[in-house]
Amino acid sequence: MEPRAEKLPRPRVEALDEILGTPFKVLDDGMVRLVDYMGDDAAVVQAARVSYGAGTKKVSDDRGLIRYLLRHRHTTPFEMCELKLHVRVPMDAWRQWIRHRTASVNEYSTRYSVAIDAAQQTASDQWRTQSVDNKQGSADSLPLETGQGFSESEAAFQQRARDLYQERIEAGVAREQARKDLPLCTYTEAYWKVNLHNLLHFLALRMDQHAQQEIRDYATIIGREIVARWVPLTWEAFEDYRFGALHLSATETDILAAVGAGDIEAAQAIARDAGWLKISAKTGNLLRNRERMEVEAKLQRLNLTVPWQS
Amino acid sequence: MEPRAEKLPRPRVEALDEILGTPFKVLDDGMVRLVDYMGDDAAVVQAARVSYGAGTKKVSDDRGLIRYLLRHRHTTPFEMCELKLHVRVPMDAWRQWIRHRTASVNEYSTRYSVAIDAAQQTASDQWRTQSVDNKQGSADSLPLETGQGFSESEAAFQQRARDLYQERIEAGVAREQARKDLPLCTYTEAYWKVNLHNLLHFLALRMDQHAQQEIRDYATIIGREIVARWVPLTWEAFEDYRFGALHLSATETDILAAVGAGDIEAAQAIARDAGWLKISAKTGNLLRNRERMEVEAKLQRLNLTVPWQS
Amino acid sequence: MEPRAEKLPRPRVEALDEILGTPFKVLDDGMVRLVDYMGDDAAVVQAARVSYGAGTKKVSDDRGLIRYLLRHRHTTPFEMCELKLHVRVPMDAWRQWIRHRTASVNEYSTRYSVAIDAAQQTASDQWRTQSVDNKQGSADSLPLETGQGFSESEAAFQQRARDLYQERIEAGVAREQARKDLPLCTYTEAYWKVNLHNLLHFLALRMDQHAQQEIRDYATIIGREIVARWVPLTWEAFEDYRFGALHLSATETDILAAVGAGDIEAAQAIARDAGWLKISAKTGNLLRNRERMEVEAKLQRLNLTVPWQS
Amino acid sequence: MEPRAEKLPRPRVEALDEILGTPFKVLDDGMVRLVDYMGDDAAVVQAARVSYGAGTKKVSDDRGLIRYLLRHRHTTPFEMCELKLHVRVPMDAWRQWIRHRTASVNEYSTRYSVAIDAAQQTASDQWRTQSVDNKQGSADSLPLETGQGFSESEAAFQQRARDLYQERIEAGVAREQARKDLPLCTYTEAYWKVNLHNLLHFLALRMDQHAQQEIRDYATIIGREIVARWVPLTWEAFEDYRFGALHLSATETDILAAVGAGDIEAAQAIARDAGWLKISAKTGNLLRNRERMEVEAKLQRLNLTVPWQS
Repeated sequence: MEPRAEKLPRPRVEALDEILGTPFKVLDDGMVRLVDYMGDDAAVVQAARVSYGAGTKKVSDDRGLIRYLLRHRHTTPFEMCELKLHVRVPMDAWRQWIRHRTASVNEYSTRYSVAIDAAQQTASDQWRTQSVDNKQGSADSLPLETGQGFSESEAAFQQRARDLYQERIEAGVAREQARKDLPLCTYTEAYWKVNLHNLLHFLALRMDQHAQQEIRDYATIIGREIVARWVPLTWEAFEDYRFGALHLSATETDILAAVGAGDIEAAQAIARDAGWLKISAKTGNLLRNRERMEVEAKLQRLNLTVPWQS
Repeated sequence: MEPRAEKLPRPRVEALDEILGTPFKVLDDGMVRLVDYMGDDAAVVQAARVSYGAGTKKVSDDRGLIRYLLRHRHTTPFEMCELKLHVRVPMDAWRQWIRHRTASVNEYSTRYSVAIDAAQQTASDQWRTQSVDNKQGSADSLPLETGQGFSESEAAFQQRARDLYQERIEAGVAREQARKDLPLCTYTEAYWKVNLHNLLHFLALRMDQHAQQEIRDYATIIGREIVARWVPLTWEAFEDYRFGALHLSATETDILAAVGAGDIEAAQAIARDAGWLKISAKTGNLLRNRERMEVEAKLQRLNLTVPWQS
Repeated sequence: MEPRAEKLPRPRVEALDEILGTPFKVLDDGMVRLVDYMGDDAAVVQAARVSYGAGTKKVSDDRGLIRYLLRHRHTTPFEMCELKLHVRVPMDAWRQWIRHRTASVNEYSTRYSVAIDAAQQTASDQWRTQSVDNKQGSADSLPLETGQGFSESEAAFQQRARDLYQERIEAGVAREQARKDLPLCTYTEAYWKVNLHNLLHFLALRMDQHAQQEIRDYATIIGREIVARWVPLTWEAFEDYRFGALHLSATETDILAAVGAGDIEAAQAIARDAGWLKISAKTGNLLRNRERMEVEAKLQRLNLTVPWQS
Repeated sequence: MEPRAEKLPRPRVEALDEILGTPFKVLDDGMVRLVDYMGDDAAVVQAARVSYGAGTKKVSDDRGLIRYLLRHRHTTPFEMCELKLHVRVPMDAWRQWIRHRTASVNEYSTRYSVAIDAAQQTASDQWRTQSVDNKQGSADSLPLETGQGFSESEAAFQQRARDLYQERIEAGVAREQARKDLPLCTYTEAYWKVNLHNLLHFLALRMDQHAQQEIRDYATIIGREIVARWVPLTWEAFEDYRFGALHLSATETDILAAVGAGDIEAAQAIARDAGWLKISAKTGNLLRNRERMEVEAKLQRLNLTVPWQS
């Protein structure tokens, strides 16, 4: 890396320039649109080469280098790229969104301006039941009939909330106070700017099946419509190494290695030592154990024998 | 600074230990209580001495050193102290709170658990009018009669919101979705942990008269009841150098220096060059100019002549 | 989570209080010692319970909950604990150290004070050869004889550097300038404060076999002597889920699943599609491919067949 | 702020595009060059308008709005702009540089690659004496003759350092270890990416007269050659409100107000209460007091009477 005197052209990505400013619709009245960006796959490679040496200089190696970086969590080169979005989101999804502290944010202020006159409305077929397995998740849809009732009561309630807000504003109540009873799903808007490393972290968490459906819809649009166009090599590597990855703990690895070696008894011994094979005195069955259930799922995904199931 | 072999006692602050766990009430149903802390004024001094040299070793200098650090914005020694609070706050105030990205947060999850059954209720005499000067602020109270009406309609509305939430939960709607129409002022709880430097920044902004009343109430309790007990020297310096400080721009400084020298014409010339003395062609009066109005306020605070007012 | 009125005792960890202030020696003249801390395993659990619900309240579950958090990268509860160290480190190791941006630092200033009169000296048997496999790493030791020569020339050179520094200081050269030719391995000292989440990230990277030996020595002491005493449950989980973990990409998982199912051809096809099985036209052998080599190592660790090796 | 469907052109700044890639020389062998950027003055304004309301929509107001933001430390809109530089810097200056934790960095690795064969050489007329007033600063130049001696001994020493490094590399010593005795002023290179808010903070500290000359040279080039071209309105406001500003504490403000009102006795009383007017029992003169000296300097800058000097 030596100082070069030549004039540089500014990096640009044609596929992104084509969608600059175009809103992608999300939910009933939300959207995401690209406002600006900085860098591309080549900027990641350029940064990695200054850090990780000049050994891999051929253009053909770019894909391999990006995959290497992501696989081994060498994350700093991905910070060299930056994305800026304009989003319109229900406030309850936005609260989850801004828990990611590593982004820059300018949000529409309902102290300065009258609140946006829209709240997210749930359609009759979109009311979800509480998941039993997953304390924080949803499961199937409610019966359409029940859903219809809830959609109607919601519409009426949101109208009542809006009227109340309007009455206060008209009576001269301060905007910052008048808004206090608006529903959590009232829409807000913001500029959101984040670097590629932090964006991938956001997407890994928010495109995940454990994320709430509403924010998943946003994350999926950002990932598949914007990031995939922007940095295609990084996106491919991300899908392979992060999004679809399987993580094994040291203990899990030991159990799999014993299974791999055909030593079922050794595998059982490791699990027993880890406390995963305790037996209920009452029923004689294995006691419920979360870690054991997780390794069973992993063994099954890899088509390997679960050593404590005959 | 040389390695020392002696065993250290753990720093503690008696005045804080006395209030560990005690809730300070805020608003109608909110609170702040201290859960844990690390460091004290002496930890700030200790850190400063390693950076800024061994020149000021006497205990009597601690106060002077802390004042020096704060005055000159040498902020890193203040990062050596840490505070951890348990807070109960309406979600609309909490949204402002967590915009401060440099803290650690664990918040009560309404995906995992049923939402807290309380929303902040505004008393009849606490409805505030919109400020005319300050687009984001409040001014006086509304007439009690009007306020009474608003308090009543709010209570009814909040009850309706709660009923709606309850109906959904009972019908098996997922908690993460059932909550979507709860009012913004529904209470939440959280652990909030922050270092002293970032806490002072938070307090400077949120104890300010431009901050919304609700979050000011929290910030004021944290500042006066907790920080003042914890790091009394830092708190005194903060009040002097940050909270009550006056900032002059280069141009303002030049105008004041001209006034100080008795050269009113020079002062006028500087203001004119800055574009602050434009005259309305219609009225012949000075056009409204925000920067001029601000320097006028500063001149008045310092009992100095405003050079363009005779 | 409801406001409680009872007074809280301040969390403390006896095993840590015993080593407060005790220096652990590192390298020839470096050290690490604990200055203060905040929180413990119970603070992690407490924070997790406010976020992740009240479902797992029994004390017996603490270990399971901490393991769950670490396994699923729910990292915010670990931010509730904080550690503060006093370290003495060669500047070249310190440069790697402070690349971790999420800590608070106050370092000894060689602008304010005369530089510490010590540089790290490498013993005759500690000169390492350049690794061939690993561009950034070291391999075996150099022959003792060669090492002896290097240790002697280093001692003479460091003495010369010190003399030069001293000459400049005595002639009145500013300290900030006089230091410019000191060796990179000159010792510095600092206070370093970091939360447990960021500390674990630091340890995962710096205790790793790819980290430079010098900083590994520091990281290992911090991990095994301090963190293991401080938060034993977290440390155990960390060793299992982070330090000894095995990560499989989506493609690797698919190959392992095919091997697990006994379908060697399918496994080969996946690797071929991924471009890992290209044949050299010259030799007829598989071309060198980093990703293939890594999955081979993983298959071997799990005692599974490498499907392209007969 | 409503979703707009029109296609946006990507923001660009012609004056910056002209210098993309052009190295600005710093010190004897260092440089700074612009690699990429995102946003401009208009992006700051755009972000401010979404937060601070639609009241100030006229293009003519952009300058006023930016000045308002900077004056009142509304910093988030400045985070919407991003700058990426390629720098070549002596490691001792670079250590100060990367203490700013809010930037993204990829640095040339002397573990992967052979160290850059250049160290910063100080010319005969550039050896500075230690400042007496300012513990961390420099004062005048040393006599040319003395300087010549130091430049010669430095050149010989740096050559010796390089030879030693070369001997080690040739004998097969690992690069990560061979480098340990290189002088602190050995050059390194890096990509450095930072948002405008954090960049202004960096410049405020590093262009300051208390900063070390070497890093000031870099900061000044970045400020005057790059930032001034990039965001001219922001730069103008920065120079006025930050770089040339004067800060008064509450106590200082009270003293100035008393002086402004002509009440010298009241001013003295305030200073006395603050402990600034203590008299030496020995000499009968005022004791040295740093805070008093600072307010005296401020009074003098404003051409106001120092109330305790007759």
